[in-house]
Formats: sequence, structure tokens, C-alpha cells
Amino acid sequence: MGISLGTNQYGKAENRVVRVVRDTARHEIRDLNVSTSLRGDFTDAHVGGDQGAVLPTDTQKNTAFAYAKDHATGPIEDYALALANHFVADVGGVSSARVAIEEYAWRRIDVGGRGHDHSFVRSGESVRSTIVTVDEADSWVVSGVSGLVIAKTTGSEFRGFMTDEYTTLAEADDRILATSLVARWRYADASVDWDATHAGVVDALLETFATKHSLALQHSLYAMGEAVLERYPAVAEIRFSAPNKHHFAVDVERFGVQNNGEVFIAADRPYGLIEATVQRDDAPDAGDAWRAVPGFC
Amino acid sequence: MGISLGTNQYGKAENRVVRVVRDTARHEIRDLNVSTSLRGDFTDAHVGGDQGAVLPTDTQKNTAFAYAKDHATGPIEDYALALANHFVADVGGVSSARVAIEEYAWRRIDVGGRGHDHSFVRSGESVRSTIVTVDEADSWVVSGVSGLVIAKTTGSEFRGFMTDEYTTLAEADDRILATSLVARWRYADASVDWDATHAGVVDALLETFATKHSLALQHSLYAMGEAVLERYPAVAEIRFSAPNKHHFAVDVERFGVQNNGEVFIAADRPYGLIEATVQRDDAPDAGDAWRAVPGFC
Amino acid sequence: MGISLGTNQYGKAENRVVRVVRDTARHEIRDLNVSTSLRGDFTDAHVGGDQGAVLPTDTQKNTAFAYAKDHATGPIEDYALALANHFVADVGGVSSARVAIEEYAWRRIDVGGRGHDHSFVRSGESVRSTIVTVDEADSWVVSGVSGLVIAKTTGSEFRGFMTDEYTTLAEADDRILATSLVARWRYADASVDWDATHAGVVDALLETFATKHSLALQHSLYAMGEAVLERYPAVAEIRFSAPNKHHFAVDVERFGVQNNGEVFIAADRPYGLIEATVQRDDAPDAGDAWRAVPGFC
Amino acid sequence: MGISLGTNQYGKAENRVVRVVRDTARHEIRDLNVSTSLRGDFTDAHVGGDQGAVLPTDTQKNTAFAYAKDHATGPIEDYALALANHFVADVGGVSSARVAIEEYAWRRIDVGGRGHDHSFVRSGESVRSTIVTVDEADSWVVSGVSGLVIAKTTGSEFRGFMTDEYTTLAEADDRILATSLVARWRYADASVDWDATHAGVVDALLETFATKHSLALQHSLYAMGEAVLERYPAVAEIRFSAPNKHHFAVDVERFGVQNNGEVFIAADRPYGLIEATVQRDDAPDAGDAWRAVPGFC
Repeated sequence: MGISLGTNQYGKAENRVVRVVRDTARHEIRDLNVSTSLRGDFTDAHVGGDQGAVLPTDTQKNTAFAYAKDHATGPIEDYALALANHFVADVGGVSSARVAIEEYAWRRIDVGGRGHDHSFVRSGESVRSTIVTVDEADSWVVSGVSGLVIAKTTGSEFRGFMTDEYTTLAEADDRILATSLVARWRYADASVDWDATHAGVVDALLETFATKHSLALQHSLYAMGEAVLERYPAVAEIRFSAPNKHHFAVDVERFGVQNNGEVFIAADRPYGLIEATVQRDDAPDAGDAWRAVPGFC
Repeated sequence: MGISLGTNQYGKAENRVVRVVRDTARHEIRDLNVSTSLRGDFTDAHVGGDQGAVLPTDTQKNTAFAYAKDHATGPIEDYALALANHFVADVGGVSSARVAIEEYAWRRIDVGGRGHDHSFVRSGESVRSTIVTVDEADSWVVSGVSGLVIAKTTGSEFRGFMTDEYTTLAEADDRILATSLVARWRYADASVDWDATHAGVVDALLETFATKHSLALQHSLYAMGEAVLERYPAVAEIRFSAPNKHHFAVDVERFGVQNNGEVFIAADRPYGLIEATVQRDDAPDAGDAWRAVPGFC
Repeated sequence: MGISLGTNQYGKAENRVVRVVRDTARHEIRDLNVSTSLRGDFTDAHVGGDQGAVLPTDTQKNTAFAYAKDHATGPIEDYALALANHFVADVGGVSSARVAIEEYAWRRIDVGGRGHDHSFVRSGESVRSTIVTVDEADSWVVSGVSGLVIAKTTGSEFRGFMTDEYTTLAEADDRILATSLVARWRYADASVDWDATHAGVVDALLETFATKHSLALQHSLYAMGEAVLERYPAVAEIRFSAPNKHHFAVDVERFGVQNNGEVFIAADRPYGLIEATVQRDDAPDAGDAWRAVPGFC
Repeated sequence: MGISLGTNQYGKAENRVVRVVRDTARHEIRDLNVSTSLRGDFTDAHVGGDQGAVLPTDTQKNTAFAYAKDHATGPIEDYALALANHFVADVGGVSSARVAIEEYAWRRIDVGGRGHDHSFVRSGESVRSTIVTVDEADSWVVSGVSGLVIAKTTGSEFRGFMTDEYTTLAEADDRILATSLVARWRYADASVDWDATHAGVVDALLETFATKHSLALQHSLYAMGEAVLERYPAVAEIRFSAPNKHHFAVDVERFGVQNNGEVFIAADRPYGLIEATVQRDDAPDAGDAWRAVPGFC
């Protein structure tokens, strides 16, 4: 009848894997959210209901936990690659696997000036993530950071924009610029030091946001991406999704109070939403790296 | 230095437009969440900070509200098309516009057996949506439904699946099947009755879910998509994102109570996640319809 | 040292109990969120760490599921009373128990004009709840509804209010009135038909909201509470927590469009928050009924 | 008819006040969520609809922003007291005012080893709060911290608990103990250094959680409260609401992997919920301090 199955994938989402490293009395904690998905020819499972080629999502969950013992002690990129490689190499009929991991950071509780051996407080500053895709011939690593809420209270303007009959916005020569950043970058090279590179990319984003005089959120984002690509040759491209978290000056002059750029209301909705990619011109092809990645693709 | 701007777009997200139709004493309420985004050559805005080609997101917001008066009284697809066409036709430098709208349904409060003229209660059953993309040559409409939580308490099994060394799941010949469905379908034909077709697609999804004996969630989804395509020639393809909301039978036998498929715990995480497309083989090309649509693409 | 344990309680929160009634082929589904808490003399557990008087929250969970078989098929008030009575009567050292239950409503999927036997769609219109407190001498039942989002598009004004030097609000003689209502009412009499009374109270709330010309949200709420108390002698008092969900008319006149009360923006924050009690003067004492109930007490 | 208005209050909730301190080039940012509520005799507003005694919530919002200029640069307790005192002293008919403020912390972005002058990243570690109540005769300050997610990976057991016919939990001599703490403490003395005391209380909570060998979450909480009261004579009592965030060891032995307390699943629901007060025996009466405070009262 001319109807058929198109693109599809399936897996177990949001396995909350917690791996405690207790080789010594000085424990470490790795607090992860692991999602797996498999692609292949699953036509029979959909059309006729025959599940013979389907490795259940429950089994994928078990595998994620079993692999956590050996693989979840280092960078999340390595754990994700190990899991994805296993699914492609060891499970019949799987042509491609994607493993996405979020990591929630914890810091040691300070006791008498020193971090405690086995007591921790969760740092909510941002979430580290990776999305790894592996097929029979290749693999791609897209790592990132989300929920990085940043603001600058001056050094930001927005002027000279296009106007039309619906324009009411005034030009701003000194405004608050704030966003809750999601950044994802694709590695061209899988031999990097994942942890050091991740930390360095986040540092480059923060420093550039802080020091770049901003003519628009787009202008800041481009500079931030450029800084990352300049410092890290292993990064092929970086993509941003950045809500412009508006802070509107409140008209307190009506009440005899001078505002002078000091009293704002933080608005919820609507918000500007800027999505942009900064890329290296000679980067290898993205292949399947961005397929179905939430956000810009 | 071989670094450049890649794909990008920007706009105003989540404009909470409420349009009351009060032509007569019998009011109607349209409760919408409107997000706009524009594409074009915005290199100068990013690289050098020159905003001359940028129509601010604030102006996009104003436009959405101004257009609501004339265009937000009918189907959300028409309102979205009007807005997107305006941005492409009337704003210099915009090569493509996307408008995404969610609609929250309300029903009239019943008073003495009749729906009240101007008092309403919000129905939380699901959210209707559309994502419209317009460029200089073409337009695409992807409509959908989200948050449609459905369950069947029998008529669902899961057996004959692949096993490996990580398998612990038992086969099930009678289980609860439940999901919180997101479905998005692409129209091949923009001359349909948007409202009637949307309602009919949802009916087809629900009826097929109810009546199809399920051998897996994938099996149900395929049948649901097939039913939609069979009934509605204007639908070119339909895509699903369906969490398998697990309901585990609780071992109350330990306490001298027979379960008999009557006492379950609804689990939060992890959950299976099934993503699948059912498509018409002779459908026109999807073009830009699914670019950056959240979820499967 | 003059430091001691004060008020305390402990329990298992958010047991997601799903009870399927499958006595016949026409199934029913009860989708519940059950939280239990116990009070008594738990000084040793806190001060010295001796858990001998503590029935673990894990055991409370098991009990909730075991009791679901026999007690979760009727009104949630009966299930909550059965559980709470068990804890006080059968567990040593428990002087008081509270059981709070939320119920998520489902409707049958319509197939060929008739509700299907075992396939359902979740109605998101509101959540029914009960909070039952039992001690050795008495018991209290506070039932309610939450997430009931209601709006009227006319028949609402707000005028004649107090002004001071911070006043900027204009009087309104025709505005949208909207709220997401939480209502909780205390029963003076436990022999009522819980299901019929609950449905009747919600009807009274909706009808009165619809038909009462509103001079303020407070004015509507009082009338709604009064209607409930007049219709249901078993209700001793009713308490409301009602955010005033502001809908601001958008100034589209700037763009040559007449608003005429038809184009609004729904604001998120801040919101007015009205909390009020309507009570029967001769009602029995509330005792422990409202202790620690979230919201107004 | 024997029906009347009972307890009530009204106000503006969640004013998102952002106060930038820019007296010098080294800016500071105060990111606040301010909720006000007023009590008094508002019978006419409810029963008859006469708003003459009602200061609109919109005016309360304006006042919060106007007061931010002078009062939102120091501790949130001082800002809350100033606002609440104003409402009681200056607005006719207000017998009592409550102002609740949450503060979101930001840290300076590090650039070249030094915190940047005007660029910040939001720290998500926890939220500081205060709830201030003022009436014509007295005032109460309840400050707190919420969302403080803490865990210890050893040094926690749970044994010797009561058992009954629903018991299945095994004793644990080494388990993960984790919670997302809400703590609120009432000051007996308003002349303290609010900022230093708040920081010191949080330190005492963290250090005691870390170093106290735990026989139960209750046992840890009591010790934490006791440490606070011992260090800070100005604190009259402290109340906790602490979900026991269960981490269950995963049975990976089935797959030939030794767990050894290293591989856990973090569960969402249900969770234990412990609520407890630690109080100073000679503390002044709590008066209206805890009325309607969310959580334990």
C-alpha cells in the first residue's frame, strides 16, 4: 500500500547511574544520567511485531550498569564509547548506537580547611554532557555543557538594528546580557584528554563572554566559539543554543527613585533564542554526529 | 584563520498569545505559545557585531501579537503560515522563517447543562502544535500532538526478543502498555481542513492504540501511523517519540495478597524510548520541514 | 544543654500506586500518588540513633501497595483512612498517621461511539486529592482539587481599590480573570458519599466561578466557597490558594490594530496570590487536620 | 446563614528583582525572588466585593522594586524587614505582613586568576531564603537554605528498626546517604550579622553531615540541628525537610561483575521524607513565625 517504516531508533533513556570510586578511603562520586539508543533494521518489530532482532531496553539498562563498574570511573566520553562500541560490535543487527551521558558535578564538603574523604555537596553550576555515535565504520563525539547561566552587568549594547512598522524597541548602549547557555562541540580527534579539554573549553567560553565587549548576543557567541576553536584544534565545530534572558529596567523614577541601571526585573517569557554554529572550515564531515541531537541540527 | 559562521537562526520563543474572540456574547478563547525564528545571512551580526540586517526578536514578538488579531482566530496552521510568510516576504534578508505554535485547549464550563458563554476550564489532555517553515520557494507544515498520555491494561505482550548475557527481563504475555505520546506529521498538501484533519489524526491514533493487539510499543506505533496515513492522504509521514512508561507488577504475594495483574508501581526513570517514522513511499521530499525539530530528525 | 527534638514526622512520599480493576473485561484504572507519614515519640531515633521504634519508610511503602489490592478500588478517602488506621492501630508507638493521596483521572478511549474496555487516555484537567489524619481518638479528612485552570473572558472587574504613592494600576471594568485553583475542604462528617460529594463540590466551584459577576478574585473565591458550604452540609470549611494569572492587554494600537479586549499576553511571574478560607461557624474544631498541609494553614 | 470568611492573606508572588550594585566598576549582582503577602480585615473585599481596603498586588510589586534600590544591596533579611515594616506601618488596615525572599548566588567569572568586575556565572549549589513576618507588635525572621543536595558514600548505616509483616528491607551497615535538604531556622535575636550567621549555619550543617557517623537520616539531622544551635545562640530552632534520596546497589553480580558498594541506581520516587525540628528549650515563643510556611509547621 505504499506505506513503510522510516527512520527509527529505540533505547533506554535516563539510567541514573551512580558510580562510587572507593579504591581508597578518599572516595569519588560519579553521578550520571545515561541514555542509550540503537539503530538497525527493526522493520519486523514494527510491522509484524516480531521482536527477534530487538535487544530490549531493559537489557540495555543492565548493560549500562554492568559497564559502569569498569568504565564509569574516567571521562564520560570513554564510558559512552565503550557502551556504544559494545552494542555495535556485540549485538547482532545493530548498525549504529548512540549513547548520551549527562554528568552532575559534586564537590567535597570542606571540613577544617580540607575536602572530606567521603562527603559531598552537589554543585549545580552546570551539567557536562556527551553524545557519542558509533556505527560500523566510524564514531563521533559531541560533548557539551548545559545550564551554564551567565550574565554581565555592563559591557553590552544592542544598536543599529533593522526597524520596520512593528518596531518599538529602543537602542541600548548599556544593558544586562544574560543567558542560560547550552553549548555542544564536535571533536575531530578522539585522542584528546577529554577532561582537560572539556574544562578548557568551558573556561574559554566563560572568559570570552566576560571580556568581549558585546554588540549583541550573537556577537558574544561567535567570539566564544572562535576562542574555543582557536585554543582547541581537536574541536571541529561548536553549536550554541542561547536564550536571551531579558532583564528589563524598572521605571522606579515614577516613585522618586533613580534607577541608573541598578533595578531590573528578570523576565521569564518570551525570550530571545539565538542558535548558532562556529565551525572550522577544514573540519572532517559531521556524518551522523548531529542527527536527532536536541536543539539545533 | 579558517573559522566561520555555520548554520544559525534566531527569534523570539514562547510568546504567550491569548486571543479572545468576542464578536458575539458567546466568546471563544485561543491560548497559544508562539515561537518564531528567522534564517538568512547574519554573518555581520555574529562576526563583526553589525546588527543592520537583524530584525530584533522584540519586533518579532510585536508582530506575533499584532497578527494575532486577524490570524489567531482560526487554525494555528493558518496563523503560523501568515506570520512566516510575512517574515520572508516583508523583511529584507530573511531567506527562511519558522513559526512554531502550541495550543492549549479549553472547554466551556457547564452551567445547567449548557456550556457557559465566557467561562472556561483548561483541558490538560494534550497539546496541539504546528511547526511551519517557509522559504522563498516553498513551505512545509508539520503538525502534532504532545503529552497525550495513553495506557491499555491488557492486550499487550512482549515476547520473543533477543537475549544476551545481560538479559534478565522475563517475557510478558499480558502487561500494561503506557506512553506519553508525541506525534508530529508532515502535510503533503496545504489545502486540507486543518482542524478537522488534526482531530481525525488524533482519533486515528487513539482508536488504533486501543484496538490493536500489541506485541511491542513499536508494533502499536507502526499500526497507529499506518492508520493515519491510510485515512489521510494529505499526510506524507508521521513521526513518534514515545517513552515506554513502565508499570511493574508489585510482589504483594509476599504479604499474602494475590496480585493477578492488579497492583503496579508506575516507574519514573529509566524508561524505554521509542522513536519511529511511518511514511508514504511516494511522498514529496521533506525539504527543510524537520530541520532542528526537537526530537527525531 | 537545653536542646531537644521538636515536632517531627517521617514517611514514604510519592508511592506511585496504579490499581487496575479487572474483575470483568471492562477494566478500570486508578492512578494514585500515595504519601504516608507517621508521628509518635521518635526521640531515640533522632538523638541516639536507636531505630527500634521506627517502622522504616520502605515498610510503609510495602503496606501501601499491599493495601491497594483491597482498598484502592473505591474512593481515595477510604483507601487513605484504611492505611492511616492501620498505622495507628497496628504499629506500636505511632500516635498519629497522615496519608495523602493524589488521583490522576483517566477517561476511556472512544471507539465507535463507546468507551473502550481497557484502553484509556489521561485527562489532565485537574488532580483530585485527599489528606487524611488519624490519631488514637479522632480522624480528619481534607479533600481537594488542584491544577484546575479556569478563566472568564468577561464579567470581571477590579475597581475602587486603595491607592498610595506606589500605585500605577488603572481600574479595570472588564478584564480576564484566570487562576490555577487549589481548593481543599475539610469534612465534618465521614459518612458522606466521597465520590459524589467531590464531584459536586467541583461542580459548585466551576458553576459559581462562571456565573458570579466578579469584583475581584477574592470576591469570586468567597462566593465559590459559600456555594460549596451551602450545598454540602458535610463540608466544615474550604480553603483556597489561587494565583491570579494575569492576562495583560497588548498595545497593538501602535501597529494600527484595534485590540478591543481581544489580544492578551499571559504573564508568568509575578502573579497575585490569594489565599482564603470560607468556613461554617458551627463547624467542629479542625484539630490536627491542617497541620503542615502545604499552603495555607 | 452561619458562613463567614476565615483566615486569609493576599499578595504578589515571585517578583524577580535583580539589583545590580554599580557604585564602582566592580559590580555586584543580587538576584532575588520576592513574594509579599498582607493580612488584615479584608472581609468586605471577599464578601461584598468592596476593594477599598485592598492595596492591590500590583502596588505591592511596585513597592518591592522601588525598595530594591535602597534595601536590596545588603542581606535579604534587611530588605524583607524594610518591606514588611512599610506595609504594616504605612498601609492602612494591614495588621500583618509577610515577605519571603529567595536569593540565587552568583560567582565572578575567573579571568587570569581574578574574578571579573562585571561578569558572573550563577552558582546552582543551593538557594538562600528568608521569611519575615511583621505585625503591629512584633517581628519574626525565619531564614533558610533549600536545594542543598548532599551525599556521603560511607559512614552511614540503618539497622535495628522495627519489623512487621510488611517488612522486606534488609539491614544496611554501609549505605549511601543522600538528601536534598531544606532547612529553615528561626532567629530569636534580630541583631545578628545576617550574612555571617547564614554562612556559618550552612557550614555547620555541612560539616556535621560530613563528620557524624549516621545511624539514620533522622540521626544525622538531629546532630546537624544541634550543631547549629550550639554555635549560634541567636537561633531559636531549626526545622528540616529532607527527602531520603535512595541509592540502591545494582545486582551486577548476575553479569559477573563485583559491585562492592560501587554501582548504584539513584531512584526518583518514592522517597523517604524526614521532617524534624531541633529547638532550644528556653527559646522565645514562635508566635506567627511558622504560620503557613511551606513544609513542616
